[in-house]
Amino acid sequence: MERIEDGSVVSAAGFKVGSAACGIRRSRGPDVALIVCEGGGAAAGVFTTNRFAAAPVRWSRRILPTDDLRAVVANSGNANACTGPGGENAVRNTVAGVASLLGCDLQQVAVCSTGHIGVPLPMEKLEAGIEEAGRALSPDQEAARQAERAILTTDTTAKACAVRSQLEGDAFHVGGMAKGAGMISPHMATMLAFVTTDAWVPPPLLQSAVEKCTDVTFNAIAVDGDTSTNDSVIALASGASDAVVTRGKALQRFSEALRFVMQDLAIRIARDGEGATKLITVKVSGAQTAGDARKAARAVSESLLLKCAIYGEDPNWGRILCAAGYSGADFRPQDVTLRIGGVQVFSDGTPTGADASAELGGDTVELSLDLGAGDESATMWTCDLSKEYVDINAGYDV
Amino acid sequence: MERIEDGSVVSAAGFKVGSAACGIRRSRGPDVALIVCEGGGAAAGVFTTNRFAAAPVRWSRRILPTDDLRAVVANSGNANACTGPGGENAVRNTVAGVASLLGCDLQQVAVCSTGHIGVPLPMEKLEAGIEEAGRALSPDQEAARQAERAILTTDTTAKACAVRSQLEGDAFHVGGMAKGAGMISPHMATMLAFVTTDAWVPPPLLQSAVEKCTDVTFNAIAVDGDTSTNDSVIALASGASDAVVTRGKALQRFSEALRFVMQDLAIRIARDGEGATKLITVKVSGAQTAGDARKAARAVSESLLLKCAIYGEDPNWGRILCAAGYSGADFRPQDVTLRIGGVQVFSDGTPTGADASAELGGDTVELSLDLGAGDESATMWTCDLSKEYVDINAGYDV
Repeated sequence: MERIEDGSVVSAAGFKVGSAACGIRRSRGPDVALIVCEGGGAAAGVFTTNRFAAAPVRWSRRILPTDDLRAVVANSGNANACTGPGGENAVRNTVAGVASLLGCDLQQVAVCSTGHIGVPLPMEKLEAGIEEAGRALSPDQEAARQAERAILTTDTTAKACAVRSQLEGDAFHVGGMAKGAGMISPHMATMLAFVTTDAWVPPPLLQSAVEKCTDVTFNAIAVDGDTSTNDSVIALASGASDAVVTRGKALQRFSEALRFVMQDLAIRIARDGEGATKLITVKVSGAQTAGDARKAARAVSESLLLKCAIYGEDPNWGRILCAAGYSGADFRPQDVTLRIGGVQVFSDGTPTGADASAELGGDTVELSLDLGAGDESATMWTCDLSKEYVDINAGYDV
Repeated sequence: MERIEDGSVVSAAGFKVGSAACGIRRSRGPDVALIVCEGGGAAAGVFTTNRFAAAPVRWSRRILPTDDLRAVVANSGNANACTGPGGENAVRNTVAGVASLLGCDLQQVAVCSTGHIGVPLPMEKLEAGIEEAGRALSPDQEAARQAERAILTTDTTAKACAVRSQLEGDAFHVGGMAKGAGMISPHMATMLAFVTTDAWVPPPLLQSAVEKCTDVTFNAIAVDGDTSTNDSVIALASGASDAVVTRGKALQRFSEALRFVMQDLAIRIARDGEGATKLITVKVSGAQTAGDARKAARAVSESLLLKCAIYGEDPNWGRILCAAGYSGADFRPQDVTLRIGGVQVFSDGTPTGADASAELGGDTVELSLDLGAGDESATMWTCDLSKEYVDINAGYDV
């Protein structure tokens, strides 16, 4: 498996993308993206667990997994969440617009939205945008670059990744794009991510591979602890290559490629959290159960106090232990060891007195917490909490 | 029952307080407080559930409830948490210092600390402070005012409250003081709170009354979602009045007074959260179970996105519904109604289109969420999230 330099969702054969700026986002950038699998492909999805799941989530959840998806349409600037029956109509009209453009059934079109909650979707703008995106459809990297920008809200950078791998001599590719920034918490499948492959993967296998990978990638990041109404990860398999994924070795190889792309995108989301200046990797080891490892990693990753301290480059490690202490994980304080970067600050229940300040100066920070209670481990990625996060969210306007 | 203007822990008869500035806090203000019940009194306590419970918490939890407590000693500037065996010794020396001052047993002295985690307690300073506080012991309001300041860290105001009530013609008083500001989350008994009464309350009754009241007061506030290592609520009953609390009506009357004082202190903590500019009251009604009501109220109270929006006076009510949606509470979106202050913004699953901006201009905001699923309700108090919170916690130094 190798990473493709500047890879994208069209690194996998069988896909075209198009995008448009239709005026839903006030910032006037591109805000509609269309990913099309011309021959129809297998597709799977993982969605938010929020009870106020947005209308597009409810639609896409209903039609996936499937062995014949033609397109995913996504808009930014408006989440179409908490919009009542009007929101359902908007999804139906969106789907109908794409289906008529491509000459396919409604059930062959998945929909994702991100942006303001509780505001009616401006359908005239979106319908015009879909037509324009349809005219722009192309298998070129440049088209993918545009589409990556079209799904962003407060993100500061586009997020894409692709790899090349092979199954018994047959090359295949996995590509992906994502958006993140705010309302990012585990217990879900992050804001929006689209993954493509030209391997052929039967829908049930694709679904379970996406679920498993989501668990250790998009579900292992945290920006602010808010689980969105619109989180969606959708994977499409065109089968345009000769690689066919069945159980066993082939599934393992495919899952490796899928996980690589999804983890890369997840880390990009954590690094580009709203207002973030540093990527924080939280590694918990020595837990009694995998659940305990996740609980401790999540509590540390979501601690405001810790995130503020790291923003200020203050090695206030007591906040890390405090968060592990209230996480619900089972351990004895006297067995715990903590490292910040390469510096051990706490060992067997006692401060070592070492100063970890120098470990906080860069744009990445690694925290390693050994609970001394067993063999299980978990890794999560998060970011620091800056004043800019507050600024961004005190008057959200994308 | 009536509130006592400028009341304090010495509004209840039988108590003296003293304080001192011994140099543990870098800001050089008072940092040691001593509350003494000269005749010995009943005492009860509720403490943090954090696994890294600080050494003073582990000591105080062991000796409470009791029918003969003589004193509570508290220091700010150092939490004596995550300090290993040295922390245990420091508690023993602190207790010994107070016991020798008052001529009582070690088991008659409770201890609380708040401040930096993981730093050895400077015992010489603290021992000198205890002696000085002992010399200053007095039943006067002025002494209570000093002690209220001695337990603060990043709090901007001292927090005290007292009421007068009666049992079958016999007057009694309940007074209290507290500190809050950061590392404030429910699942606990907030940072530090001390409550006194001159009624006589048998220790088991006092313990259960304090637990019940903690649940709907200190456990119903949130500043940042971090459950501290040092949270402690300690109640002392001197029996210096003629009021005796037994079961039934007397217990009910006493619990009303206790709850009034504890709720008043809890709301003061929420209002004075680090960097806070607004007190937010979150009322959830129509829940299927009391647990669901609490879950929804807690998720809304701890949503960073909502807290930032309220700081910016942005009526972005979708964030309230989003938080309820991921809270784990059971309800149907189409049954939900939401009001911000007096303005209904969402009704039966649909936005009303009403603008709630004008409801966010003051220094208090009330959010009322009706889940439409049952009869249970819960109220929590929280504060907005400002850039100053980040400033304070990017370089914590009290």
